[in-house]
Amino acid sequence: MLEGLLYPKTIAVIGASRTPGKVGYAILSNLISGGYQGRVVPVNPSGDEILGLRCHKDLKAVEGHLDLSIVVVPSQFVKQAVEESIHAGAKAVTVITAGFKEVGAKGAAAELEVADLCRGKGVRLLGPNCLGLINTENSMNASFAAQMPKPGIISVISQSGALCTAILDWSAGRGLGLAKLISIGNKADLCETDLLLALRDDEQTKVIACYLESITAGDEFIKVAESVSAVKPVVILKAGTTQAGGKAASSHTGSLAGADIAYGAAFRRAGVVRAENFEALFDYASALAMQPLPQGDRVAIITNAGGPGIMAADAVENLGMQVKPLEKSISTALKEKLPAAASVGNPIDVLGDADPERYAMAVSAALDDQTVDGVVVILTPQAMSRPAETARAIISQMRGNKPVLAAFMGGQDVMPARSEFVQAHLPDYPAPERAVASLKAMCDYAAWRRRPPRIVARFPVNRRRVERVISRQVRGGLREIGEVNAKEILRAYDFTVLPGDFARSPEEAVMVADRVGYPVAMKIVSPDIVHKSDLGGVKLNLRNPQEVTDAYELMMLRIARRMPTARLHGVYVEQMGKPGREIILGMHRDPQFGPMLMFGLGGIFVEVMKDVSFYLAPITKEEAMQMLMSTRSYALLKGARGQGPVDIEGIAGALQRISQLVTDFPQIVEMDINPFIVGEVGTQPIVADARMTLSGVEEHHE
Amino acid sequence: MLEGLLYPKTIAVIGASRTPGKVGYAILSNLISGGYQGRVVPVNPSGDEILGLRCHKDLKAVEGHLDLSIVVVPSQFVKQAVEESIHAGAKAVTVITAGFKEVGAKGAAAELEVADLCRGKGVRLLGPNCLGLINTENSMNASFAAQMPKPGIISVISQSGALCTAILDWSAGRGLGLAKLISIGNKADLCETDLLLALRDDEQTKVIACYLESITAGDEFIKVAESVSAVKPVVILKAGTTQAGGKAASSHTGSLAGADIAYGAAFRRAGVVRAENFEALFDYASALAMQPLPQGDRVAIITNAGGPGIMAADAVENLGMQVKPLEKSISTALKEKLPAAASVGNPIDVLGDADPERYAMAVSAALDDQTVDGVVVILTPQAMSRPAETARAIISQMRGNKPVLAAFMGGQDVMPARSEFVQAHLPDYPAPERAVASLKAMCDYAAWRRRPPRIVARFPVNRRRVERVISRQVRGGLREIGEVNAKEILRAYDFTVLPGDFARSPEEAVMVADRVGYPVAMKIVSPDIVHKSDLGGVKLNLRNPQEVTDAYELMMLRIARRMPTARLHGVYVEQMGKPGREIILGMHRDPQFGPMLMFGLGGIFVEVMKDVSFYLAPITKEEAMQMLMSTRSYALLKGARGQGPVDIEGIAGALQRISQLVTDFPQIVEMDINPFIVGEVGTQPIVADARMTLSGVEEHHE
Repeated sequence: MLEGLLYPKTIAVIGASRTPGKVGYAILSNLISGGYQGRVVPVNPSGDEILGLRCHKDLKAVEGHLDLSIVVVPSQFVKQAVEESIHAGAKAVTVITAGFKEVGAKGAAAELEVADLCRGKGVRLLGPNCLGLINTENSMNASFAAQMPKPGIISVISQSGALCTAILDWSAGRGLGLAKLISIGNKADLCETDLLLALRDDEQTKVIACYLESITAGDEFIKVAESVSAVKPVVILKAGTTQAGGKAASSHTGSLAGADIAYGAAFRRAGVVRAENFEALFDYASALAMQPLPQGDRVAIITNAGGPGIMAADAVENLGMQVKPLEKSISTALKEKLPAAASVGNPIDVLGDADPERYAMAVSAALDDQTVDGVVVILTPQAMSRPAETARAIISQMRGNKPVLAAFMGGQDVMPARSEFVQAHLPDYPAPERAVASLKAMCDYAAWRRRPPRIVARFPVNRRRVERVISRQVRGGLREIGEVNAKEILRAYDFTVLPGDFARSPEEAVMVADRVGYPVAMKIVSPDIVHKSDLGGVKLNLRNPQEVTDAYELMMLRIARRMPTARLHGVYVEQMGKPGREIILGMHRDPQFGPMLMFGLGGIFVEVMKDVSFYLAPITKEEAMQMLMSTRSYALLKGARGQGPVDIEGIAGALQRISQLVTDFPQIVEMDINPFIVGEVGTQPIVADARMTLSGVEEHHE
Repeated sequence: MLEGLLYPKTIAVIGASRTPGKVGYAILSNLISGGYQGRVVPVNPSGDEILGLRCHKDLKAVEGHLDLSIVVVPSQFVKQAVEESIHAGAKAVTVITAGFKEVGAKGAAAELEVADLCRGKGVRLLGPNCLGLINTENSMNASFAAQMPKPGIISVISQSGALCTAILDWSAGRGLGLAKLISIGNKADLCETDLLLALRDDEQTKVIACYLESITAGDEFIKVAESVSAVKPVVILKAGTTQAGGKAASSHTGSLAGADIAYGAAFRRAGVVRAENFEALFDYASALAMQPLPQGDRVAIITNAGGPGIMAADAVENLGMQVKPLEKSISTALKEKLPAAASVGNPIDVLGDADPERYAMAVSAALDDQTVDGVVVILTPQAMSRPAETARAIISQMRGNKPVLAAFMGGQDVMPARSEFVQAHLPDYPAPERAVASLKAMCDYAAWRRRPPRIVARFPVNRRRVERVISRQVRGGLREIGEVNAKEILRAYDFTVLPGDFARSPEEAVMVADRVGYPVAMKIVSPDIVHKSDLGGVKLNLRNPQEVTDAYELMMLRIARRMPTARLHGVYVEQMGKPGREIILGMHRDPQFGPMLMFGLGGIFVEVMKDVSFYLAPITKEEAMQMLMSTRSYALLKGARGQGPVDIEGIAGALQRISQLVTDFPQIVEMDINPFIVGEVGTQPIVADARMTLSGVEEHHE
């Protein structure tokens, strides 16, 4: 995949320049100094030779065997350069030039034109407004960043070119190599999903680290990221998550940033490892690239200093992992080898004067221990420490069965150890907390890899009935689906709705009440009223015909007075349900990632405590249970304060059926079941009220 | 203060060794190579010369003019060495030797003996089991860490010697200096409070950075830390906060780690800046040491790259600070000076090809802007970047009125800039998030410095009445103060308690009920029953004499059956109160920091949501309001879901009165007012139930 972009045999640089300091010079010079072995053709109408290469006025010389064209001409000439590239047979085009979507509508139009041009001919376009790309496998530095990294196993996809330069500089400082580095710029054609797919199949790449400000196509992203994560870890730093950050993002790239909660849900689904900040991006990527995945979350800590051992133990616990004593046989055997003052608990304290052998013995013991899933080795440089030798001793113990991460603290004294570690593919961190956080990222990814197969249950439902209701709404020009119709839809998806019916007069209301049985509830039916109870449009516990008649007339009178413009179709009369826990179930379609299900316990839990959880549909039973369990109020559902447990599986089942409904009917863009009343196991949960919103309905008020 | 320890003129090293690699050699060698100008006297029975210094068999030569004695002999000889040091007139003793409290009870006893020895003679003792100390002001490296830091303005107090070596190595790597570095070891005498006080008055020290695993005396610590924080920032990394960490702490130092929540409350009170991890300790300390405090939390971000600008904006918002547009006049003027494509919003994007002048203009504009309280300057090394020159250009704009923090990202390319920054006292971070977090620490500390004077209100109360109740309990050998007596105490502190009385028989109960008026509540009175309602010991809403009689007899019957051993004194009959919000107010004495007040909304909010807040008594009105506002359920108190606001000031007043009560009566070690029933403003909040526990009562069951 993307052979023409990543492994071109012939590259043209259109806009190559003779002037050092110019981008058109930098690209050419980097290609040459990086050691690229293919053919490089500088194109510039005025030049005849640049950096020892014969310069061409056009692409005639490479016609038919051009692979990659790199365009660095001013923005007004980009279209022509791309046209010529396509004509010459380019398989891929990289537009470095800026001045497109990011500068406004005119730029966006020009960008679209170039992208369409490429798409029409099956040519892939990287950029515009990007740094270019680097592939260490074929020594190709097709970017204007001067530093060429050593070959490595982490590949980088970045929506910020500037960040690429910082990454290159940082990785050079750490002596860490890279596989591919790709600056995706404005993503007019090639976006994160294309490159994730390409890197999934790239043997050189063990881990993909991404910096993203937006995601081009949410649905596609989830599918692709999931398929890539199944093969190798994808670590993403998503910036622009908060309001302030989001503002900066839209002024920067002109892209629409999705809500942070949706990104969280999408990453969780797709197995993406989320980095919370810049340092975490490479902290996690290094650990995942260099070490085997842990089988669980039990961490052994080895240290020559109590304090940092405590810091590590604190961090393990804060992140929800475990620090447990070693197996008895292991700790007894280790105890005999270490000095008396050493501690063979966990943390294992090999003491301040520990030599490399002592570290080796402790690491070996921890790797032998069946109850240890991962090891963090800490060293502070003390008088007797030999950091580099200790690093080598630790490395000599590695067996590839469990992850080992180091935190050699300090500066100059531990530098030699860092080099040993980098070479031996053992990740090393400046502070224990960063090692532990990286191990946690590995644990989470490993747990995702071990997850049971996702089986989305399909319930037998009556789709035709839903289709009929929706057509009726559409014909009527009604975007909002009120209680009556929403309940009909839900009934078709096997939700339990209490007996009830629509009534247009007090007499009809009494007839319905007589039929369903007293007591009854009565609710206004109006396409213009969403929050019925706020306007006095709900009456509960009506016990006889007289109360029903009174309630009807009062309701009509009051609402007509409070909201004279509202169309009042009548009322809905319904049997009163048994009391139970009030739950809110809902769905809204995230513009990026599609249907997002919501669960929360009703009332203050949603309104004051914001104790809700989200998940992207379609959802499995396990995921629905996860949604419930990830709220704090789950404890109440399980029974608390004298109340017994409610029918938790009933709630999970409801979420699964909503998931099926909104997947079957994408025109439903929003829905609330509020409240959904859930009683004990064995009782039927009830939809007490519901509403939905349709997309694509042209409203025509009569 | 601590002149003899920090500025000795004559130092003896008892246990000086001729053998490189031994601690007794390292100390001597470090004193010499560090450049200490005072007299150094090695003491060793066998030696005659070490490292060119004449070695003494005893301390006769320095008798009468010894200032500091450093003891490195094996633990069994430490006592004698300390005795001789005292005899020779030492003003301070540092015991490097380990093998005391940290190895068990015997060691602890030996340690106590040495400490008592010193205390008896007014000699201060550092250690045992420590690394020693370093003072760059007089070039004294009285430690066994080989690296001597440059003079600087941050002083370090560390409970972990090993961490000191990591700090020294790290600071050498960064080119950062230190003022004093003191390893406090087992804290047999000198502890964190002594050293905080000494460093408060130390002119060289601008910021104190501490690593602590335990705090020796909580009360004293708060007082001292508060007085120090009023003069200069104190940043503390407290390890051993979680269960796992705590376990490691106790096996390491044998010290009792206080609960994390208590440390949080103590640090908040004392204005201590809390570092969450090792890197944060120096990130925050550097910022506080080098830059002026911000006046508010409005942050300007300057960047040559969109991505990192977004990361910084995200971090600002996540930490609760603000990123707002610049003042119109400032941004207009800046716009004219920068290229058209630059953004003068916030973040200010000076573009990838920004030269040092552009950075200088942007920094100058941000510093001019009245709506900016602090500036974060980001640079990614791009082709046209000149990091070192840019650093100098930024430095040239500094005016000392607002904090400026840099985040120059990358490795090799930005190294020269880092050196410039360190020299110019401008803190520089490898990632934008760390710069922003450091600015946040400055903001919090500045807000604490600006806090209004703490005025703890004293309410007129009846202390005598409380004394009487407590004496009665003590005489009766009753630790637990039940409802009747607890209410009497609270009434004496001006809490409103409903009319009611104790009754020993159904007839008495009816008499009380007749007197206070129906309906009434009835609750069992037993010194053995704490949770009355769990055993059926509470009946509410009794409406007439018959119901009172029935309730009495049923209650006695049932409890006698359910808990035959309980002593049943009778019942408490009380007027039923009006309904209102149920609040829980409480206090427990933290073993380290004393009386900790608790507030929470009753029921599920405390039990399921754990939505409670804590504060150390004595408390001011503002702090009591803070306690309320820091819970999520505060929204409910202000009115929500159709309910009006409750008497919030009434709750704050109650917390203040509890604060006064538990300060006046330290023998009250625990108390709950549960529920405290609060209605609308203008109504009287009611103590519906209460209990307390006394300390120092010898229980004598009859």
